[in-house]
Amino acid sequence: MQADIGNALDGALGLDRAALDDLDDRVADAHERIASGRRESEHGYAALNLPETCDPEPIREAAAGFDPESVLTVGIGGSALGAATITDALDSPVDAYYLDNVDPAWVRDLLDSLDLSETVLNVVSRSGTTAETLANFLVVREAMTDAGVDWTERTVVTTGAEGNLRAMAEKHDLPALDVPEGVPGRFSALSTVGLFAAAVAGHDLDELLAGAASEAEKLSGSLYDSPGYAYGAVSYALAERGAAVNAMMPYAESLERFAEWYAQLWAESLGKDGRGQTPARALGATDQHSQLQLYRAGPADKLVTLVRPRESADAGIPETELEGLEYLGGSSLGDLLDAEFRATEASLAAAGRENVRLEINRVDERGLGELLYATEAACVLYGELAGVSTFTQPAVEWGKKAARGLLGGGDFPEADAVRGKRTLEID
Amino acid sequence: MQADIGNALDGALGLDRAALDDLDDRVADAHERIASGRRESEHGYAALNLPETCDPEPIREAAAGFDPESVLTVGIGGSALGAATITDALDSPVDAYYLDNVDPAWVRDLLDSLDLSETVLNVVSRSGTTAETLANFLVVREAMTDAGVDWTERTVVTTGAEGNLRAMAEKHDLPALDVPEGVPGRFSALSTVGLFAAAVAGHDLDELLAGAASEAEKLSGSLYDSPGYAYGAVSYALAERGAAVNAMMPYAESLERFAEWYAQLWAESLGKDGRGQTPARALGATDQHSQLQLYRAGPADKLVTLVRPRESADAGIPETELEGLEYLGGSSLGDLLDAEFRATEASLAAAGRENVRLEINRVDERGLGELLYATEAACVLYGELAGVSTFTQPAVEWGKKAARGLLGGGDFPEADAVRGKRTLEID
Repeated sequence: MQADIGNALDGALGLDRAALDDLDDRVADAHERIASGRRESEHGYAALNLPETCDPEPIREAAAGFDPESVLTVGIGGSALGAATITDALDSPVDAYYLDNVDPAWVRDLLDSLDLSETVLNVVSRSGTTAETLANFLVVREAMTDAGVDWTERTVVTTGAEGNLRAMAEKHDLPALDVPEGVPGRFSALSTVGLFAAAVAGHDLDELLAGAASEAEKLSGSLYDSPGYAYGAVSYALAERGAAVNAMMPYAESLERFAEWYAQLWAESLGKDGRGQTPARALGATDQHSQLQLYRAGPADKLVTLVRPRESADAGIPETELEGLEYLGGSSLGDLLDAEFRATEASLAAAGRENVRLEINRVDERGLGELLYATEAACVLYGELAGVSTFTQPAVEWGKKAARGLLGGGDFPEADAVRGKRTLEID
Repeated sequence: MQADIGNALDGALGLDRAALDDLDDRVADAHERIASGRRESEHGYAALNLPETCDPEPIREAAAGFDPESVLTVGIGGSALGAATITDALDSPVDAYYLDNVDPAWVRDLLDSLDLSETVLNVVSRSGTTAETLANFLVVREAMTDAGVDWTERTVVTTGAEGNLRAMAEKHDLPALDVPEGVPGRFSALSTVGLFAAAVAGHDLDELLAGAASEAEKLSGSLYDSPGYAYGAVSYALAERGAAVNAMMPYAESLERFAEWYAQLWAESLGKDGRGQTPARALGATDQHSQLQLYRAGPADKLVTLVRPRESADAGIPETELEGLEYLGGSSLGDLLDAEFRATEASLAAAGRENVRLEINRVDERGLGELLYATEAACVLYGELAGVSTFTQPAVEWGKKAARGLLGGGDFPEADAVRGKRTLEID
């Protein structure tokens, strides 16, 4: 992977090379902290060791027992997004689906569309108590039984060492994968959590991990040595200067879910203590016709991150009789997409709007492994520089308790607060 | 539709009822301007007249000639998002697809998955020169010919009074729908542009327009009379106090595309003159496990807009033996989703984070018509209060010229700027 940060300098927010050089001293300290955390396998930091510590063999073994039409992952947040990012990006004859919401109509529609006898079910929850995931699991399990499918023959669990799902796996002798210790969900794409569906879909786990390892090797005490740290340092420096928003805009439909994965990584890791850059999801070239007006002419409060695969399959544009469009005929969709990419990048720069280009060779296992790892490294470095607790998400607990109280799962004062909602209704 | 703005008051950004009452005087003036613009059918303002001026009959007639498996819309930005919002939200036996990007692999995959002899093609471009749309049209047309399908028998164009597509429609005697005058693409969901695919899919255009009309009737000189204006006024007032971001978070998978449509509406209409609230797309309950940490504990620079359909199909959660989950058994996914919704809303309020609730009865034609129209009215009012040129998008022209220049479509200095990109590459 390569990062080009040329357009992040000397824009409206005033970051210049001298300031970045100054920041590099702090990057050295932050790197020491990160390296120490990795050596001790501390909570969170351990995620950056996954290219070495994740053993793909048990994952492949758990997948090898099936030859399904589809793999259905039941999980939410980090228990779904990493796997979905990988399987959405790569082609496979096995379809991968994700039940990561509890919308009843949508759950029903998805289950109705699947041949459950040809589906592998992977239920993913470290604790075994995530309400959305367990509710969906109960619904899917019943649907399998209703369809005459023995769910114990088609279910794999990915969970912690203890809890409901672990006990269930032991009781029914289900294949069970371990959620690694010290790896928060949003950093678990390159572990059992993110790789089981990829294995069922036939993707090359070794290449995914090798891509990640190649970026891990570049990490050093200088932001100029690795794309991951360079991106993290620039994001942090621009956020300090007013880039409240970081828009992730890959120029590949297959990376649309990557932007969603990034949004969780960035929001949950950095959004605390009244600080944190807000991730915005975008997609090139489509969002040129939606978000570009704002990015270019709205507030100078954004970094736009453009992701470009250097090579992909192409499709020719036929010659045409249509007036004024002769220039398109004989070109290709790939040429057009790349021209749009470069035009958008330059268009932002010409308006003084900071942007960064992240490049991988192709959207394949290696490129994805590089991209996921480098983005995680960027996030960890940003968190270190900002002095936040990167690997926790305490603010979501309030709502979990409130929801549980509302459903009769115990007495929680948060549920009373819900009932006391202040209203000003306009019909 | 109903808007509840109770949680937008007295939060971290300090908007209170007295300030809102003061703002209401300005709403009266803004409404006068909007009403005058509508009376004169001025550019942009004319969009708010669509519930009356849009005649669904020609749209139904153009659709009636087909009994297809699928309808493929080729368009980008506002030429796709309105239609996609409607067809994604509503169930139909006819599948609706959108070619709104020029990613070659993705275009090829989509075309390979369709039976083109059972597909209606709708190519949508007011000017007939939108590069992405016309390139895709040329590719699809050739694919139809290669598949032995007479494209002239299966193509409908939606375009302006003049230009390439109009000329082509006349030459080949294709059904042609008129893009209405004075209606920017992002405001065209309730016109030919947004309704053709819905008609092919069998949706009730009268109900869509009736839902919109019911919200149009509520518009008056006070923000307290209509959900649309209430939402627009509160969004503006909070933006002035620091809500740089407006996160649109529907609690329905079927409204995921609505959030994308909203993001275009908001960004292109309001993002200019160095100002404009940045739209963020989210989805309940999924993003509670991704964005909520940031929304609740990050910077107090956000309004979170929660959209709730009051009724939907439900699915029971089976009773369970799993420890600690007894409270879920016998409940339903709908109960769980609604508890999550209310918990999230209260969780934000308890942290002083402003939020608004928009409610429709159901995700059906009427509810969608209400939601689309009220959101457009909100945007137009916001633009009026902010004093921006709501209906233009001048900042995207630079990039269009640059891309055209790069592809050999003429001499443009913008293309030279692209070639002179400043780089700082990190491998």
